[in-house]
Amino acid sequence: MSALEVVKEDGGARLGSLTTAHGIVETPVFMPVGTQGTVKAAIHRDLAQMGAQMILANAYHLYLRPGDRLIKEMGGIQRFSGWNGAVLTDSGGYQIFSLGVLRDIKEEGVTFQSHIDGSKHFLTPERITEVQENIGADVCMCLDECVPYPSSYEYTRASVDLTTRWATRCREAKKDDSSLLFGIVQGGTFDELRRRSATDLVKLDFDGYAMGGFSVGEPKSIMWQMVDVTLAHLPREKPRYLMGLGFPEDILEGVKRGIDMFDCVIPTRHARNGSLFTGTGRLNIKHARYAHDEQPVDPACTCYTCRTHSRAYLRHLFVSHELTSYYLNTLHNLHFYMTFMKEIRQSIAQGSFEQFYQKSMSRWKGGELNSESSICDG
Amino acid sequence: MSALEVVKEDGGARLGSLTTAHGIVETPVFMPVGTQGTVKAAIHRDLAQMGAQMILANAYHLYLRPGDRLIKEMGGIQRFSGWNGAVLTDSGGYQIFSLGVLRDIKEEGVTFQSHIDGSKHFLTPERITEVQENIGADVCMCLDECVPYPSSYEYTRASVDLTTRWATRCREAKKDDSSLLFGIVQGGTFDELRRRSATDLVKLDFDGYAMGGFSVGEPKSIMWQMVDVTLAHLPREKPRYLMGLGFPEDILEGVKRGIDMFDCVIPTRHARNGSLFTGTGRLNIKHARYAHDEQPVDPACTCYTCRTHSRAYLRHLFVSHELTSYYLNTLHNLHFYMTFMKEIRQSIAQGSFEQFYQKSMSRWKGGELNSESSICDG
Repeated sequence: MSALEVVKEDGGARLGSLTTAHGIVETPVFMPVGTQGTVKAAIHRDLAQMGAQMILANAYHLYLRPGDRLIKEMGGIQRFSGWNGAVLTDSGGYQIFSLGVLRDIKEEGVTFQSHIDGSKHFLTPERITEVQENIGADVCMCLDECVPYPSSYEYTRASVDLTTRWATRCREAKKDDSSLLFGIVQGGTFDELRRRSATDLVKLDFDGYAMGGFSVGEPKSIMWQMVDVTLAHLPREKPRYLMGLGFPEDILEGVKRGIDMFDCVIPTRHARNGSLFTGTGRLNIKHARYAHDEQPVDPACTCYTCRTHSRAYLRHLFVSHELTSYYLNTLHNLHFYMTFMKEIRQSIAQGSFEQFYQKSMSRWKGGELNSESSICDG
Repeated sequence: MSALEVVKEDGGARLGSLTTAHGIVETPVFMPVGTQGTVKAAIHRDLAQMGAQMILANAYHLYLRPGDRLIKEMGGIQRFSGWNGAVLTDSGGYQIFSLGVLRDIKEEGVTFQSHIDGSKHFLTPERITEVQENIGADVCMCLDECVPYPSSYEYTRASVDLTTRWATRCREAKKDDSSLLFGIVQGGTFDELRRRSATDLVKLDFDGYAMGGFSVGEPKSIMWQMVDVTLAHLPREKPRYLMGLGFPEDILEGVKRGIDMFDCVIPTRHARNGSLFTGTGRLNIKHARYAHDEQPVDPACTCYTCRTHSRAYLRHLFVSHELTSYYLNTLHNLHFYMTFMKEIRQSIAQGSFEQFYQKSMSRWKGGELNSESSICDG
């Protein structure tokens, strides 16, 4: 039985409900990123109020600090952090390969040095599964290897097979039935390897399937081609998660293809850089043109920041390096994303997703504010 | 007529209500410090909810950035910042002398270089009064010279007389009757000069009187002696403001003597350093002893932080340098101060301030958590 119930389909887009140990999550869902067990500059209360249902935490980070055993002892991540919604933990494969110093990949597992204190660590698929169970994640992810872009066919093929063997071991190591375990499809930019990865993982019958290794520098068109190839080999009844994406337009593209789950640092990281999302594109609040601007960031937005503050004041806070700037900007951007996901779900429910997609895309394309390039550094 | 109505006296302590253009402020009041027009890491919504009635902003900082004329154009500090309560602006005398580079004091005014970009500025008593009126402060402060500790009798005497002449000019320059103007008593650690400063300023009939130049390194006992000398020469019906103090025990001492208004960076700055106030003293959340501590910071506290998070989680956020740490800690410390001020006002209303004073002092003196020394770096 699948944890996901697909309630309605509208073209390729799907409306669903994902049952977790901490509530039912309506899909398509966007998960704000709370790497260290807190969404940067966002308070749980506000996350709940704006409709965040599930946040992403990172097993690699929490393993290093404060330690998965401490979190287990404190009753799991929800009790430890005070967050009452669902939590998905990324296994940390991506972080080990991007942050770890002197990493060494062997069949048995991966050796790396902590980015915090340089201490040496060895993590196996079995241990990273235990870490996520100790953390008490509602959805755990298999340990995978992320290959850089570009990588050779030979290297990528060997890596895909290693990721599948690691996935097998994660599945065997999983003890707690109350949480879900997702496999991660890799395969770089090779149709055949994406297909191979998906097919091999599906044989292992995971609770859901993620697509990883994107947004590492490959062209967007190739990424979507790889997503399409992969989706054709994933079972329709299982949840599908596109990792580390993205901008609102990326989410629309993903939903259109049948993706159910998304996460990205974009709304939070952009907020801290002063880049704010609106219905007509993004604006950079530090720009001098906003110094005397009495309007809210987005006149159509109902978030606390827009109801309370002008662009002029938010610009002042940002250029003055005030902590309240990060907080108010983050609140706005996450509210934008959460509202956007609600509108997506509503449009699928009403059978009008295609219109919503077209309307949103044309609005952003025409928006003069939309001047930044579309990349995700998740 | 005085803007302050003294509602009740209990020993030396006074319960009052101060009428401002943005509401009535119940005294004794503690003003959170919002130097740049925002209380660091605190959102207006939360400040209002915890009962903050008046915040302090800094004319020197706002003059430099975003500029007092911009704030005037935007309708004043309340409209600009979205804060609906009262605002007092410090003139910036203290900041000019502590932050300004190459400052040069003349009879006419003070020349200094901006701490932001090194630009050169000249401020007169007339201009700093205009700056505060442009900002739209409910309470403005005269430009004063803060002398360092120790300073000679001769230097301090000349400085006191300059401060009085500047105060005269500020009073003459004041145009808007809807805001109040306070004189600032200086005089260093000399009884005679404090008396002289107070007497001369009272002749000018200000709306209230502040005591400045404290917490610059002088012994606490000398400070209280100077406060006592000064208070004896201030009119009972006018508000009295002890600038830049302090710890809860300092506030109790001040209230006992008849001080109505306080401000200090302690609750907010300490919060960002992980030092949290409780009914039994302060605890430093970074301490390893809290790593597994499931209790809230203060089990008796009703703030959002204490209702939601454990010491263990707050410690994790602090050692992980998460922005949410600053926010949650600040919310707790300010809530502690606001609750403390409510209790003080309540005890005066009930005629039991002396018991409240004794009970609080003995609780803190006995508290094993109260290990930090009591200094204010306002």
